[in-house]
Amino acid sequence: MTFNMNDIIFKKREGGKLSKDEIDWLITGYVAGDIPDYQVSALLMAIFFRGLDREETFNLTNAMRYSGDTIDLSPIKGIKVDKHSTGGVGDKTTLIVAPLASACGVPIAKMSGRGLGFTGGTVDKMESIPGFRTALAPEEFLNQVNEVGMAVIGQTAHITPADKKLYALRDVTSTVDNFGLIASSIMSKKLAAGSDAIVLDVKCGDGAFMENLDDAVTLANLMVDIGTDAGRKTVAAITDMSQPLGRAVGNSLEVIEAIETLKGKGPEDITELAEKLSGIMVFLGGKASSPEEGYAMTKRALADGSGLKQLRRFIEAQGGNPDVTEDYRLFPQASVKDQLKAEKDGFVAEIAARTIGLASQHTGAGRATKESEIDLAAGVYLHKKVGDKVAAGETLAVFYGNDRAKVDAAMAEARKAFVITDEPCQRPVLIKEVIGLED
Amino acid sequence: MTFNMNDIIFKKREGGKLSKDEIDWLITGYVAGDIPDYQVSALLMAIFFRGLDREETFNLTNAMRYSGDTIDLSPIKGIKVDKHSTGGVGDKTTLIVAPLASACGVPIAKMSGRGLGFTGGTVDKMESIPGFRTALAPEEFLNQVNEVGMAVIGQTAHITPADKKLYALRDVTSTVDNFGLIASSIMSKKLAAGSDAIVLDVKCGDGAFMENLDDAVTLANLMVDIGTDAGRKTVAAITDMSQPLGRAVGNSLEVIEAIETLKGKGPEDITELAEKLSGIMVFLGGKASSPEEGYAMTKRALADGSGLKQLRRFIEAQGGNPDVTEDYRLFPQASVKDQLKAEKDGFVAEIAARTIGLASQHTGAGRATKESEIDLAAGVYLHKKVGDKVAAGETLAVFYGNDRAKVDAAMAEARKAFVITDEPCQRPVLIKEVIGLED
Repeated sequence: MTFNMNDIIFKKREGGKLSKDEIDWLITGYVAGDIPDYQVSALLMAIFFRGLDREETFNLTNAMRYSGDTIDLSPIKGIKVDKHSTGGVGDKTTLIVAPLASACGVPIAKMSGRGLGFTGGTVDKMESIPGFRTALAPEEFLNQVNEVGMAVIGQTAHITPADKKLYALRDVTSTVDNFGLIASSIMSKKLAAGSDAIVLDVKCGDGAFMENLDDAVTLANLMVDIGTDAGRKTVAAITDMSQPLGRAVGNSLEVIEAIETLKGKGPEDITELAEKLSGIMVFLGGKASSPEEGYAMTKRALADGSGLKQLRRFIEAQGGNPDVTEDYRLFPQASVKDQLKAEKDGFVAEIAARTIGLASQHTGAGRATKESEIDLAAGVYLHKKVGDKVAAGETLAVFYGNDRAKVDAAMAEARKAFVITDEPCQRPVLIKEVIGLED
Repeated sequence: MTFNMNDIIFKKREGGKLSKDEIDWLITGYVAGDIPDYQVSALLMAIFFRGLDREETFNLTNAMRYSGDTIDLSPIKGIKVDKHSTGGVGDKTTLIVAPLASACGVPIAKMSGRGLGFTGGTVDKMESIPGFRTALAPEEFLNQVNEVGMAVIGQTAHITPADKKLYALRDVTSTVDNFGLIASSIMSKKLAAGSDAIVLDVKCGDGAFMENLDDAVTLANLMVDIGTDAGRKTVAAITDMSQPLGRAVGNSLEVIEAIETLKGKGPEDITELAEKLSGIMVFLGGKASSPEEGYAMTKRALADGSGLKQLRRFIEAQGGNPDVTEDYRLFPQASVKDQLKAEKDGFVAEIAARTIGLASQHTGAGRATKESEIDLAAGVYLHKKVGDKVAAGETLAVFYGNDRAKVDAAMAEARKAFVITDEPCQRPVLIKEVIGLED
């Protein structure tokens, strides 16, 4: 079927509904280079103003999902459960939930990305483990899940090329921040990646793409709808990102914190989040009859060390040195370390996540552009979290890196992130809402 | 000053106001090829939804006006008055108002375009006069106005390149029909063309770009505002285009009708419109102390033959054969002529202008694309107008052309344009409103 792109733009501009055929035609034509960027950007702006309804969002997601390779996980036995975070600062959750859910019998076949800007990526974090590789061949990937119970692979160039092309265009035409476009972008990749069920961690707050709860709930509902319409059990948790998650921000620092958490010595917030999310994964994976039972199972897997054991098996299977879990000196080391100290007594009221994320990026831990090299040892470790009491001169955070000037700049920047007040402060609620578990 | 195009798109998307510097920067950058189409089309769509205020519209107009050559008419003595029609079917008004105003002492230095689609262009019409040429050198053009009182030149490639590039982009991204963009496009060309005062004929109805009165009034007000802000006396008349203007549609047919009108034998509507518009031009040109006095002067110039005499001098000055005014056989002739007859008795309630325009185009009189050749003898001549009584078998219209199949197709098409009712019908009001004469 063939259409006229100008008519499609006009239809959306006037508030009309695009048909499945129109959406399929335009995505195929765009990826093929038959439809020029200037028509697609006009359509994107019309979509920004007019929106996409549930059916259009689903059809757009599917058109992007099938625009390149899709991963067939059927050779893996069991119900494969994926977990996705919309991105935040200090978010090493995958490194904890994947081993925990896997230890409870849920096969984890995960595709992960690299970090950009002030948020990190799981692939970068894993690469701070000596020898670890994420460029697995497809059979290798599938076999590892069957044998070890979990595997993580880097994103390939052939997955959802339509999303890549559209995202690049949105990025330069001020059409990124539209719920339907964001939801379809994320879900097209998740659906192409082939798992049977999906747990979405929708971050909410200053350090996340969604800065307020209403927006996070809107996005979460859209994604759960898409997953459901695609026949995938999909659950979304909306979680706090007003301050960094846990204490560590930066690649090897976060892996160490994940290991500590699997040893039962992690920060309260990341421990709670990891147990809850992996509990939902265990439930969706059919290994528990309720989310509560799943949660009890993952708590146990953490307490009895089976999660840590699973992480070690996984590291070894992907070529990494599993001894890193016992000897942190095996990680890349920082030659520069410095402490940011409190200037007055009081209570920590705020640690602006985005500012800490940017400071960590500027220590060398993050990329400004896709081509930037990163320093795997660099980052920030928070000694205080929101709600903590602090005395003047006490350490708020330690900064790591291999470039004195960068660390200095990052520290100056990070100071602005901390708000100290005279009155005691509440800790933020970590899990604000869970969507999709009702039925 | 330099800006970020993504920020400009975002600002407009969020309803912000673009500064003069931002507009100048983006138009300059776009014409230079530094800003890509895909960013400009996203901005255009944001403008479609958010609009442009009076100042933004003026600044956009000026940025386009100065994007290429501007014409300096200062070597011409007196107050130069331009007249512009937004385009309609059978609109040969320029060929009558220019000689009339010129006969009353107003210097006319006009730049005109060619026709596209179902509307004609003055340059094409003039070229149906044997020998007539519109490609005058600049001094030749200026000298002719000083010596003869009027001259018409074809649009050059160097006038408002920003408008040309933007229009081409709007045409393929469903962003044509926005008032601010339309008004600034028209006015940028008018201002670049250099006259001191401008009379705008804003067509309204089925055969015009503005199909209803409210839209025509909105557009007229915007253009009068721009002209005023640019220091040009600007008046807009909103005139009927529900049926074709006059009786002739097609290039030589329209020139003949213009000549007949200057002889006092023209149809009532085109005669009235030409006298009124040229009367306003005479007033704006300072040759009459009121529009009414101007109107009385142009009525006289028509009645005493001085308008016709001025047309003949003008034709001769531009290389055409002035004897065409006395011998219509000097025009290109049609080898095919056929009559469309009424199928029943009644009154003509409607002659859909757009349908007649398309039928005329399809006889060969109009262009489908800029490259098409046109048949200067082809077109339609209406024997009945709205309000006329008609008997079954009477001629409604005569079709002219040089291709039997084309004429047949056009006639079949044109039949749909006529609505015959049993009850007598009112003639439409020709001049619906005049804007800009109040002060």
